[in-house]
Parts: sequence; structure tokens; C-alpha cells
Amino acid sequence: MRVEADSLGSMTLPDDVYYGVHTARALQNFAISGVAVSNYPEFVAALATVKQAAALANRDLGLLDARRADAIVRACEEIQDGRFHDSFVVDVIQGGAGTSTNMNANEVIANRALELMGHCRGEYQHLHPLDHVNLGQSTNDTYPTAIKVALRMQIAQLHATLLDLAKAFRAKAVEFGDVVKMGRTQLQDAVPMTLGQEFGTYAVMVTEDAERLLEAGQLVSEINLGGTAIGTGLNADPRYPELACRKLCALTGLSLATASDLVEATQDVGAFVQVSGVLKRTALKLSKICNDLRLLSSGPRAGLNEINLPEVQAGSSIMPGKVNPVIPEAVNQVAFEVVGNDVTISMAAEAGQLQLNAFEPIIAHSLFKSLTHLEAAAGALIDKCVIGITANRDRLYESVVNSIGVITALNPFIGYTEGARIAKLALATGRAVPELVVEQKLLSPNQVTELLRPEAFVEPQRPPTAVSASE
Amino acid sequence: MRVEADSLGSMTLPDDVYYGVHTARALQNFAISGVAVSNYPEFVAALATVKQAAALANRDLGLLDARRADAIVRACEEIQDGRFHDSFVVDVIQGGAGTSTNMNANEVIANRALELMGHCRGEYQHLHPLDHVNLGQSTNDTYPTAIKVALRMQIAQLHATLLDLAKAFRAKAVEFGDVVKMGRTQLQDAVPMTLGQEFGTYAVMVTEDAERLLEAGQLVSEINLGGTAIGTGLNADPRYPELACRKLCALTGLSLATASDLVEATQDVGAFVQVSGVLKRTALKLSKICNDLRLLSSGPRAGLNEINLPEVQAGSSIMPGKVNPVIPEAVNQVAFEVVGNDVTISMAAEAGQLQLNAFEPIIAHSLFKSLTHLEAAAGALIDKCVIGITANRDRLYESVVNSIGVITALNPFIGYTEGARIAKLALATGRAVPELVVEQKLLSPNQVTELLRPEAFVEPQRPPTAVSASE
Amino acid sequence: MRVEADSLGSMTLPDDVYYGVHTARALQNFAISGVAVSNYPEFVAALATVKQAAALANRDLGLLDARRADAIVRACEEIQDGRFHDSFVVDVIQGGAGTSTNMNANEVIANRALELMGHCRGEYQHLHPLDHVNLGQSTNDTYPTAIKVALRMQIAQLHATLLDLAKAFRAKAVEFGDVVKMGRTQLQDAVPMTLGQEFGTYAVMVTEDAERLLEAGQLVSEINLGGTAIGTGLNADPRYPELACRKLCALTGLSLATASDLVEATQDVGAFVQVSGVLKRTALKLSKICNDLRLLSSGPRAGLNEINLPEVQAGSSIMPGKVNPVIPEAVNQVAFEVVGNDVTISMAAEAGQLQLNAFEPIIAHSLFKSLTHLEAAAGALIDKCVIGITANRDRLYESVVNSIGVITALNPFIGYTEGARIAKLALATGRAVPELVVEQKLLSPNQVTELLRPEAFVEPQRPPTAVSASE
Amino acid sequence: MRVEADSLGSMTLPDDVYYGVHTARALQNFAISGVAVSNYPEFVAALATVKQAAALANRDLGLLDARRADAIVRACEEIQDGRFHDSFVVDVIQGGAGTSTNMNANEVIANRALELMGHCRGEYQHLHPLDHVNLGQSTNDTYPTAIKVALRMQIAQLHATLLDLAKAFRAKAVEFGDVVKMGRTQLQDAVPMTLGQEFGTYAVMVTEDAERLLEAGQLVSEINLGGTAIGTGLNADPRYPELACRKLCALTGLSLATASDLVEATQDVGAFVQVSGVLKRTALKLSKICNDLRLLSSGPRAGLNEINLPEVQAGSSIMPGKVNPVIPEAVNQVAFEVVGNDVTISMAAEAGQLQLNAFEPIIAHSLFKSLTHLEAAAGALIDKCVIGITANRDRLYESVVNSIGVITALNPFIGYTEGARIAKLALATGRAVPELVVEQKLLSPNQVTELLRPEAFVEPQRPPTAVSASE
Repeated sequence: MRVEADSLGSMTLPDDVYYGVHTARALQNFAISGVAVSNYPEFVAALATVKQAAALANRDLGLLDARRADAIVRACEEIQDGRFHDSFVVDVIQGGAGTSTNMNANEVIANRALELMGHCRGEYQHLHPLDHVNLGQSTNDTYPTAIKVALRMQIAQLHATLLDLAKAFRAKAVEFGDVVKMGRTQLQDAVPMTLGQEFGTYAVMVTEDAERLLEAGQLVSEINLGGTAIGTGLNADPRYPELACRKLCALTGLSLATASDLVEATQDVGAFVQVSGVLKRTALKLSKICNDLRLLSSGPRAGLNEINLPEVQAGSSIMPGKVNPVIPEAVNQVAFEVVGNDVTISMAAEAGQLQLNAFEPIIAHSLFKSLTHLEAAAGALIDKCVIGITANRDRLYESVVNSIGVITALNPFIGYTEGARIAKLALATGRAVPELVVEQKLLSPNQVTELLRPEAFVEPQRPPTAVSASE
Repeated sequence: MRVEADSLGSMTLPDDVYYGVHTARALQNFAISGVAVSNYPEFVAALATVKQAAALANRDLGLLDARRADAIVRACEEIQDGRFHDSFVVDVIQGGAGTSTNMNANEVIANRALELMGHCRGEYQHLHPLDHVNLGQSTNDTYPTAIKVALRMQIAQLHATLLDLAKAFRAKAVEFGDVVKMGRTQLQDAVPMTLGQEFGTYAVMVTEDAERLLEAGQLVSEINLGGTAIGTGLNADPRYPELACRKLCALTGLSLATASDLVEATQDVGAFVQVSGVLKRTALKLSKICNDLRLLSSGPRAGLNEINLPEVQAGSSIMPGKVNPVIPEAVNQVAFEVVGNDVTISMAAEAGQLQLNAFEPIIAHSLFKSLTHLEAAAGALIDKCVIGITANRDRLYESVVNSIGVITALNPFIGYTEGARIAKLALATGRAVPELVVEQKLLSPNQVTELLRPEAFVEPQRPPTAVSASE
Repeated sequence: MRVEADSLGSMTLPDDVYYGVHTARALQNFAISGVAVSNYPEFVAALATVKQAAALANRDLGLLDARRADAIVRACEEIQDGRFHDSFVVDVIQGGAGTSTNMNANEVIANRALELMGHCRGEYQHLHPLDHVNLGQSTNDTYPTAIKVALRMQIAQLHATLLDLAKAFRAKAVEFGDVVKMGRTQLQDAVPMTLGQEFGTYAVMVTEDAERLLEAGQLVSEINLGGTAIGTGLNADPRYPELACRKLCALTGLSLATASDLVEATQDVGAFVQVSGVLKRTALKLSKICNDLRLLSSGPRAGLNEINLPEVQAGSSIMPGKVNPVIPEAVNQVAFEVVGNDVTISMAAEAGQLQLNAFEPIIAHSLFKSLTHLEAAAGALIDKCVIGITANRDRLYESVVNSIGVITALNPFIGYTEGARIAKLALATGRAVPELVVEQKLLSPNQVTELLRPEAFVEPQRPPTAVSASE
Repeated sequence: MRVEADSLGSMTLPDDVYYGVHTARALQNFAISGVAVSNYPEFVAALATVKQAAALANRDLGLLDARRADAIVRACEEIQDGRFHDSFVVDVIQGGAGTSTNMNANEVIANRALELMGHCRGEYQHLHPLDHVNLGQSTNDTYPTAIKVALRMQIAQLHATLLDLAKAFRAKAVEFGDVVKMGRTQLQDAVPMTLGQEFGTYAVMVTEDAERLLEAGQLVSEINLGGTAIGTGLNADPRYPELACRKLCALTGLSLATASDLVEATQDVGAFVQVSGVLKRTALKLSKICNDLRLLSSGPRAGLNEINLPEVQAGSSIMPGKVNPVIPEAVNQVAFEVVGNDVTISMAAEAGQLQLNAFEPIIAHSLFKSLTHLEAAAGALIDKCVIGITANRDRLYESVVNSIGVITALNPFIGYTEGARIAKLALATGRAVPELVVEQKLLSPNQVTELLRPEAFVEPQRPPTAVSASE
């Protein structure tokens, strides 16, 4: 056991923990969600990298001696390698605008650096969590900077997975390029199209979302490192912000930039809101697509039964042989969660006051959840669903042949009003549209055959020089 | 033209307006939504009734002379009759916690009362909007009280309409009581049921929602009239709160009660949040039901095509004969709006500070929208949709006969594992379950006929003394 | 290693796991959130209890032999005691409407029961997860029933904590009963009140929320056990629903009731929506209270500085001596999370289709989070904040003496217009209201002293027989 | 009176209305919100412009004769000029994916064109609403295209207003550039800054939001005109999409582009979601700023009282002289509404199925509300609030002189731990930090004077070559 003190008094800590008194206080104060910061390894690594960049900058500026700087750097590198992640114990939901997380990092780094320097944990007279590790820093600049670095990493991962998903849809679009089927608007039979067009749409949608995500990711490239407490840079060298940013870019391989107005950058969480907004957009789109997949694969006998999703597990504990669209259903639920997270983030953003938003912890937690869950969900959607989808081609073709909606193609020849009359007649009698059009001598059999070829519907046709019917 | 003054200076008003200088300022300050308070007639009437109750109470307490009280009462009665509604001109979105609405009411009442007393509009020396009409009152007690009275009225209307909707569903449940069909879970064929059970469910749901709504309505029966500015009752007679409440009950026919802690009641908007929460619940249920109706009526040829919704308008400007489920679609959209309103109300509720919630205007506006739109939507759903729904009985019956899901009924005889094998076989071969069960000698033809009668599925059956298959 | 099979084929499992092939499939399919079902111990226990009740009912009905029933019961009891919780491994976010969770429970119970019967794990020919443990059950009735049992437990805990919080506020209300201060509306000085009234308000609010929560809890007492797949009770004995419910009541000590319409009860998630709505209400109220606490304790020198929150940790890594309201901040964030969860639940509720809501897993996960986080937050608020709050009495008293808002009390004597003139003068000159009123000979010094006693403001006073000024 | 017919039968219409039978049906079907489409004049104009572009393209392609085309064009121009807006009567909340709005436009244009051609309203044999006005079009391409054109217009307006707002803040930033004050984090005194920096932050925030809005606006430049029913372009000439788009660009002055995948573009509402997300971001930021303005101007005597907002109306009906921050409060409420609208839009977006999103009407309505209300709110904020803000300079300066937070500047000299001790002592004794530092001989009087100059805090200083205290 060792004893540490803060301004509230002294506290006894197990000797083998790397965190210190400030972290211990936070553990007592915030036993809220049971989810520790270590749950987000990219973030822990990012925080260590920010601390490393700060130490390197301070060393170069002559504010931190080489020996201490070196020990801090090595400790940070070890954390980036995944060691000591379990020392990042504070709850992701915490008051104090992230101070406890920053304190946790300062203390773990200090104690590990002390060890590397040959001292014992807790001998802060040799290297101090605040005076040295946190030198020229504040929670209010290091914490959001680390969040941004972690977001950049997670965004890149989700972006890649979305592109993979688009690719999977694109492959299906090609595979189903010649499968004609009825298109639907408002769940009612509309006009023919191909199943390839249907899946091609999903590819386009997901690609667009991936692009939007990358754009939003650019917004979190602007950091406020060096702003210290409120953006005025108190206690940081005037040269420090640019230098620390350069160090951080070098360490992470990211292109980051120091915000031009650090006071603004310290309090503004607009970039987080925008990233969340784009994640919500992505989630809504994935949910829409999964709704479609579930609908198109409904059945097998009393549903649309147009496509088949791969069977990945038994569907029911009571109904033998039942297969459920469990992967799309999981994606739907992640989407609902992301929309909820967006509202949480919105409220937290709105609640920021004056020079700081004290609610960044819940913003970060919500963003990390949205990103990692979406990525897992999109990955499962590719591997366990999309790539194995098959089409019930005969059924789809028949649906076009039997359809009433094909009457639309005759508008230029018989007019909307006459078309509506034939449609009604077809529905009432159960007979086929082509048959009725010929029977009623509206068009010749040849014309009907030509105009109502299923294939003619799937892309724009040069209209014949028809005379509008109501002339 | 006449001139009125407030502490900002004097202002020229058209002589024929009943509102005064405070209202005129508000018109300049809040040109936000373009929706005037007059848009909610129940609320305008409620506000006039609150003012009337206050005048009667003050008269009885000897604080307001009979002549003035009488003029105020008559003016309020005229407003309740729908006269002067167009004088309630301030925007529903306004700063000031409703002060402008209260000022608007005070001024219209004062000016109309002045006329009734034989004076000219604006001659406030005879009867003053604040010293007399607003005597012993504050915006902070009269405004929320009026909102609550209006909510009680609107809740009663929505409640009645929901019960009508439940009745319409119940009638369909009876009509379709013998129509057997496949039930579905997760859009996959499950086990048989009746269409009557499906519609009966909607009747139960809507009835439950109506009950919850009535309960929530009880919460807005607690008023803070007499609390004046912050609930301490400054400038109101100690006997006034109870007396004014009694007057208001008598005038409205509602059972209202004075809150036991007026300081709390003045700042707390919990009851509004709860009403909105229940409206959201109702909206979500209506949306779910409409999703089902749209799905079950999908087609006519490439959809489920189990039921038919009445045709109420042409469905497309390009596709002749297309019919769309436009009424359920409108209901869906109102539901989405109500969920959005609930978030708006939540944010406004959270933002209340110290002794008052300054954001009651947007809370009221959002609640009024949710209530009136839901009522209109539910009414349309009854009249233009539910009562005209018909069933495609043959198709529904066939879906049961052809189904694989009936295998579930054989679990007690052949076990889950064997059932799953048969189901798979049926799906692969396109053959019927009963045929396969007999062919594979799992059960006798008679047993199969008895166990797989469609009618046997729709309610619990006494299980035969079967031996579990895996014995 | 042991081999198990389902209709997708066989799978090799580590021999020491209690779960089986269906669970193993789910682990592969749903690696989404990283949060296992075991994260909610009340829910795992509740699920085991539901299974136990089902086994007991089936035994009593002669459908399950005593030996198997007994083994199942003993296995369930062990789970309730917290053993085997780590065998509940499926992700809380899962497709399949909870089937994987139910499968997980069936398998763990079966394998543990097999052991108790002297067999090896996986020897399902002796006791089968589906044919015996799941006998007469479906995921669609057992899973939501278990959720409801768990919710009842968690609601009771939160209810108790809220009452404790109300008690803590009530104690402060008594302690500060004589501390006069300025009340504020819209953050502007209004009229005097006591700090006791301010804290008394919080006590009332929280008490009301606790009551609403208990009412909402009643709604989840209605269960659908025995409805099996879609509520028609297929494969369950007609006597089973009531019997199983009775068993469950006895085991849990809760008063539960079988829904009168099981088809409705199987698909309706209205009760979950309502519980979430009330949790949101509670969250918004706690957030509002914490906003107030943060505002009233702002400073120490450039803020309102009216009260002091206990110091629970150092406030800053850069600003020595800074103390932050970290506990209220944590509560705020939980509140934002709960509002987000409510939106998630709303979307999931709306998305239910036909005979089942496939999205109950995210509904349950969101509710469990809201309940447990709110309880932890409320508990911290009591212990680490409210009970240690102190008042800066002198400063508060001075704020009343110096205030302009006291002019309101003179309305009955000098009228609103004259009052406004004095208020403006006081503001412009920096002088005190009483002094100006006397100087301008509006009232005598004695009258002013009597009327403007701070203590006179905090509760309604019998108005003197003043003549309204504008007479 | 005149008689018109559709496939439901014939209907009698007042002879003087420009709309026809389809509109009349919609009026009966959708009496939901009471808000007519005419409420959004930019949208009505945009819809007429889309119809005009279509007519011009069809004429150029030889599909529509010049006489009819000309009449249609003239009718559309008249509508753009604001005539006939009151003929756009259908409810903004409507089922049918906007079909009723499109029908309304087709009918008004046809009837006005008929008049211009010398015919009577209703003589559709000469010019038909569907066969001619709607030629080669569907609701599903014209309606969203018109929404996008209107959005572009409204976005441009809001963008301009936001830049004006930023300019107003910037002017204040300059005016208050030398006013030193205490910065605050988490409502607790932090370190000094200038009031100019505080207002400069708002200028930066609003400018950034305006930029994001413009970017989002680019996304709605991609239109699907020519896709007709489901994006396959059925009944439209292959050359039509590009030609119609060119015409529309010329008529509107906007740079629009035909989507590369029209099937995707017809069903995807991602761009609307993104615009709404950015509007929400803007709203949250405006709300945050208004929260700050309300807080900084709290008082006048028991609040922070750092700045004064212009008085724009009397603040209370009971408290004379009270002034409230009514303009910021209105902005807050619009912000809450916009967040709610975003949720509404999210749900509507998610609910789109297969080839169309049937819920575009509520999406459009919600976006139009968000845009117009935000613009009105931002405009009021400039004119009635920001430009008239004044600072209480003496009070602000004193807050720095008296502050404890200045101790932070001494970290490099005395270390965090010693700083915390002094801060605590200052708080306990009520004494000033500089005095204590000198008294305790931690630094010389000269050093203290130099280091604690208020002006030294507001931008980064070159740190002296201090030796870290804990060496």
C-alpha cells in the first residue's frame, strides 16, 4: 500500500496500481455506467499520444528536461502498445469535463515513467503527474484533442467498412442485373425495374454516406492543444500550440491543425455534433436498407419472397425450421441506438456554458459507441448477409408479367384517364393488362407486345411519336 | 389611431385594435413562426376563463369593485364565445415565458370591458389591464393554468376519438373473426391466427392508449393559480388560490385542484412532459398499426394483398389506377411529428431554471400541435380507412394451407429437431407439410388432419397425452 | 471438446461451456456492442425464474416429468443465486427478437440440469433445451416476461433511491427554512423567497417523479406468458398461462397478471415506452435540479455563490484549488443519455411489425441502462452532493435588501406604472427601492418598512385595504 | 359550379377555384394540420418553376406543342410572381408522397393556362393537368426537385442572416476587446480573458455554422427530375433529364445537377437528413450562445450582471421594471423546435421503403419550418439584442482583481500543490491571492505584480525561465 494526498487529504492506494489519488477519488465519485475508459482502446492510445506530443514539445522548448521527457515518452509508447490499458479505470460517464480521465492518464504515465527512471510509484518529487506530465496542458485541451484523434481512427475504420459494404451491394447489383421485377412505391406495385437496380441503389447510398463521413471527419482535425484552460493559452509557451500539433501529426500520421481561435475551439463541440449527425444519416440509411431486405425476403410462403437471406442461426425456439433476418434486425437496432446517441449528444452540446462544455465525456462515449457499433453492424451485414443473398428469379419475373402497373407505359398512347379505366378493369376481373388493351382495341397486339416487354421498362426509352390521347 | 405607453416610451396603435402597447411590442419582437395564439381557440377561451375566474375571486374578496369585475366577466364571456379570437395576435413562439400572451389577454379584455363600461379603448384610467384585469395574478400562474385547462379539453377530445377508433377496429375484429390467416413474426411466416385477432389487437392497443391518456390528463388538473410570480403568492390574498380555483372549476366544469406547493408547481413542467410522453406512446402505436395496414394491403399483385383499404383519391400523377394507402401514410407522418415534438418538449423542460420555466410557450405549442394533429389523424383513419377495410378471404385461407409454419403444432409429437428437418424439406421441395409428415410416417393421416386444421391454431388447445419425441 | 448440431450443421464447442450450439451461433452473429447479457444480473435471474415457473407449471399439468422438472428447477435456482451468470454470453444487441438470449438460457439450464441429473453436458437426449426446458414456451412470451420481471426489480430500486433523494432535499429545506433570498424568473431577479422553499421544491419534484415511476411500473405487471409464438397459445395447455403466472408471482414476490388478450400483449411494447417516458421525465427533472445546483454554487467569487457543494475531488489539472460541481455534471450526462435512450426505444417501438416487435433487445438494453444509470446517479447525488450543501446566508440576505424586485409588493399601493418608474430609477441610480419610495413620498417610512420586510415575501399576506393606484 | 371526375366518380367544384378534383379529394382526406402548402411561398414558386422547366424541355423535344407549352409557361410565371398562391390549398401533412401537392400544381397550372388560351377552367380536353402539365413527370421526381429548389433559396437566406449575426458579434468583440473579465469553466471561476474574446467566439461559431450550412446546401443540388415514377425514367425521353435540369438551372439561377443514379436519387432522402443535421447544429450553437447571453446578463443585482441586453418590452405583468432576455429565450425555443424537427425527419427518413420515401411531405414541412424559424430568430437576435449589448466594465475588471483563479499563472513558479494551498487559504479567509503569495514569501511583490497583471492573461506569454517548483 502507498499513501497519496490531494487537497482533500491523504488516501491509501494498493501499491501495485499505476493510477493515483485523483483517479481513486474519481472511482469513488463516478460508479455510474460500469464502463471504464479502457473500453475504448483507440482513445486510451490517443490520449497517451497527446501526452507524448506535449512532452516532446515542452522538451524542445526547454521547459522539460530530457530525462523526464524521455521517461514520459517511453511510458506513453508502452500505453500505445496496449500495456496499462487496464489502468484506465475511470467511468466513461464522469463529471468534471474529462478531468478525471486526464488525471488518470497523468498518473499512470507518471508512475510508469517513475519506474522507468528507477523510482517507485508515487515518488512524485522526481516526476510529477501535474507539474511535469501535464506541463503546459489542461484537461480542456488535451482531452478533446485525444477524443478527436480517436475519432479520426474510428472514422477511418467505419469508412473502410462502408466501402466494403457498398462493394458487396455492387456485386449483387451486377449479379442481379438482368432480373426484372416490379418496383414499388408506397408498398404498392408501381412499374418494372431490375433487382440489380434495387441493389445498385444500396451501393450508391452507402458510398455517399461513406463520403459524407470522411468530410465530417475533416472537421475533427482542428484541435485546441495549447489553449490550456480556456483557450487563452495561459501557462503554455506561445510556440507550443504549433509545435505540439506538429509532434502529434508526426506520431499519429494524421493531418491535424491548430484552430485559429483557441478560445472558440475550447468551448465549441460543433464538430462532434456534425460527426454524430452524419453517423445518424448513415444509420438511417442502413436501417432503411435492412428494412427493405427484411421485406423482400419475407415469407417464405406468405410473404414477398423475392430474395433469400443466408440462414445464420435457427430462428425460433418453438417454430422448427423458421429462419429470421437476424442480421438486418441487429443493424436496425444499432441504427435506433445511433439516433438516440445523436439526441444525447445534441442535448450535451446545447448544455455547454461559457468557456467550456462540461459534458464532453458523454459526447465522446456516445460517439465511440455509435462508431464502433455501426462498424460491427456493417461488417456483419456484409459477411453474414449481403454476400449470400440469392434471388427467386421466376417469381420476380412473373410479378411483372401479371402486373397492372405496366399500364403506365401506355400513357403517351391512350392517356392517363383511359389507362386508369383499364387498370380498374384488370383489378376487378383479375385479367392481364395486355389482353384487355388488345381486346378493347386500344392498341394492336404487336404494339402491346413491343411496349410492354419487361426489359423496356428498366431504362428510359425514346418515346414513339405518339399523339397525346387527350388531343 | 390612439397612443399608448409603457416604460420604453409611447406607441401609436390603430384605434380599432383591442390589444395594446405590450402586445404591439411583442408583435415587433416575435415574428418567428407566423402562427398566432388565435390558432388554438381552446387555449384562447381557456385564458379568458382563467381571467374571469380571477376577477370573480377578487370581487368576492372585496379587492375588485363590482362594476369593473362585471365588465371583465362579460368581456371574458364574449371571448369564450369566439369573438375577439383574432385579437390574440402574438406569435406562439415567444420569449418571456408567456408574458406577451398574458399581456395580450389583459389588454383585449380591458379594452373590451372598457367599451362595455361605455369608455373608449385605451382609457385605462377607468380599468387597467395590469392593475385590474391582472389583479393578484402573474403570467407565471395564469398562463400555465390556461394551458392546462386547454389541454384537458383537447385530451378529452382525443380520448373520445381514440375510443371511436378502437370501436372501429373492434367491429372489424368481429367481421373478420372467422378469417384464418398466417401470423407473422419478424416478417416471416409463423403460425396461423385469425384476421379478427389481428384487428382485435389494434382495438385493445388503442383502448389502452386512451386510458393512459386520461390518466396523464389527471396530472394537468393541478394548477398554480394564486402563486403569482414565483409561487409565494405575493400580492394575492391568502384565500385567493382556493377561491379562484373553485370559480375556474365551476366555469369549466373540470375538476381542478390547487397544488399543495405553489413554488414547486410554478416551475415544474413534469405534467406536460408526461402528457407528451403518453401522446408519443399513442403516436407510436398508431404508426405501428398504420405500418401494418399498409403492409397487409400491399399489392395489389406483387404484395401481401391480404386486405383492401378504401380508395380515397387517385394514387399517382403518372401511374393510372394506382391506389395508395394515403390515410395511414398521413397518420405515420403525424406520429413522426409527435415524436419530434416530444423531444422539443423534453429540451424545453430540461432548460427551465430556478423558479420558472421560461420555455412554456414552445411546450404549449408543441403539445397543442400533437393533440390536434393526432385527433385529426385518428379521425381520418376511422372515417376514410378502417371502416371500409375488406379482406381477401380466399388468399388468406390458402396462405395457411400452404404454410410451413404449421409444423410447430407437431412439436409435442415429433419434437423440435424432427420438425426442423421436415420444414427444411418442405421449403426445398415446395411440397406441403401434411403430405410430408404422412409420407415419412411420422403421424397417421388422421392425426395430421386433426392436428393441422387451421381452426385449431387460433386458440390454445388441450394437448393430447403425447410423449415428447426426444424421450 | 463436444460436438453439437442444429439445422445448419454441427459445431465443436469447448466442453466446459454451459451454453450450446444456438448460443455459439449467436456469438458469431452478434459481436456488436461487446456487452453481454450477463451485464444485467437482475435480468439473468429473472429469465431463470421464468423458466423455473414454466417448468413447475408444466410439471403440475403432467406435461413434464418430475425428474426433469426438478433438475430444471434446481438449475434455475443456481442461476438466480448468481452462479453461471458468466454463461449468459450473447450480446445485448442481437437480432431475432431475443431468441438468442432465450436459447442461451435454455442451453445453460439444460446443461446444468443434465449435470445435476448425472449426465454430461450436451447429452440432450436426456433433457432437451427446446423440448423440455422451453416446453410450451416461445422466446416471444418468456423473453418479454423476463424483461418485465427485471424492470419491476430495477424500478423498485430506483423508486427507493428517489425517495431517499427527496428526503435529502427535504432535510435541506428544513435546514434552510429561514434563509431569505431573491427568487428568480428567467434568470432575472424576481421577488424574495427562502432557500428552504427552493430545496423544498426539489423534494416535491423528486417525490412526484417517484410516484409516476411506480405507476408506470404497474404497467409492466401484465405478462404474456403462455401466449407462445404469437399469442394464440399454440402448444401451451389452456390452463398453463394462469398457472405459470401464479408460479412466477410466488417465486418473485411480485403481483403479475396474465394479459387478457395475449395476441395483443405479445406484440405491444406500449408499457416499455411508457416506463421510458417516465424515466425521461425523471431524468429531465434531475437535470434541471442539477443545473440549478451548479448555477447557485457558481463562483466562488465571480458567480452567484449562494450555496456551496461539497468538494469531492480536485477540479482541474491546471487550475489549483478549483472545485467543480462534478456530481451534478455526472447526473446531467446520465439525463442526456436517458433522453437519447427514450428516442431509441421510441424508434424500436414504432418499428414493430405485425405479430411481434423484433426489436425488444434494444428496448430492454436501453431501459436497463436508463434505470441503472439513473439509480447510480441519484445515489451519488445524495451521498456526494446534497447532504453536504451549505448556504452563504449573509450574501443571500443582502441580495434581498439590495433588490429592486421588492417593488412588486407595492403594486396594490402605487400601481404597476408608478412601480415601473421607481424600478427604473433605482437601476439607473444604483439606489435602494425603499429609500426612493420614501423620498418620492409615495409611502411613509413606516409603511415601507412594514411592506418590504424580507420575511413578508415568502408566503401570501392578507392585503391591506389599499385603493388601487390608478383609481 | 363545375363538375370534374376522377376514377372515384364526379365531384362538383365552385367554378372560381383553380384547383380541380384531385385537389378537392385531398382537401377532404387531409384536414390535419390546417397549414396549407401556400404557407411556404418559396416552395410554391419552386414547384411552378419545375413545371415550367418540364414544359420547356418537352416542347424542345417535340413532345408538347408550342401553344400548350407557352400557356403552361405563362401560368407558371404568374404563380412565381405570387399570384394564385392561395390556390395551393392542400395540407402540408398529407399521405401520398406529395401526390396531392403535385396534383394541386398540375390543376392550378392547367386551369390558369386554359384561361390564358381562351378556354374555361375544367375544359381539360384542350390542356390536361396530367397528360400535358405533368407530361413525362411523376410526383416522385417533380416534388422532391421543387423541395430542393426551395431549400436552396431558404438556405441562402439563412446563410446570409447567419453571416450578419457573426458580423454583429464581431463588432461587439472589437468593442469589448480591452474589457478584461474572468473566464469560467463549469460555471466556476477559471482564469482571466477579455469580453472581446467571449464575443469573438460567438462570431467564429456562427461563421463556421454558416459554412457548414452552405456545404450541406450543395447536397440538395442533385435532383432526380426525369426519373419519373421510380427513377427508371419510364415515359420520359432519354434526353429529358439533362434538358429539364438545364432549363431549371436557367430559370432559377441555381447550379443543379441530375443525379447519376436516378433510381437511387428517387428514394434517397439522405441530403435532407444532412441539411437537417446541420440546421440542428446551428440551432444548438445559437441556443448555447443565447444561454450564455442570458446568464451573463442575469441580475440586475442578484445575478452575474456582466452585460446588459437591450430592453425590448416590459418583462412582467406583475413585477414592475423587470426586464427579461426575451429575444434569446425565443431563439432557445426555436432551437428546441429544430432539434425536434430533426428527430421527425430522422424517423421519416428511416421509414422510407423500397423505391420511394412516402414521407417526404413531413420532411419538407419540418425543414421549411426549421429554416424559416431559424432565420427569423437569428434576425431578431441581431436587431433586437446583439447590436445593443453593453458591458458593465467596472464590475468585470473587479472580478479579475478579486479572483482566486489567477493563481494558475504561478504554477511554473510555485507548482500545482502549493498553488492549491494558497487558493484554499484565499477562499477560507476572503483575502486576495497576490497579498497571500507575497505574505508567504513565495514570490516578491514585483514578481506578483508582473505575473498577475490582468492583461497578461488574455494571450499566451513567453514563460520566464522558471524552475519547476517540485524539482
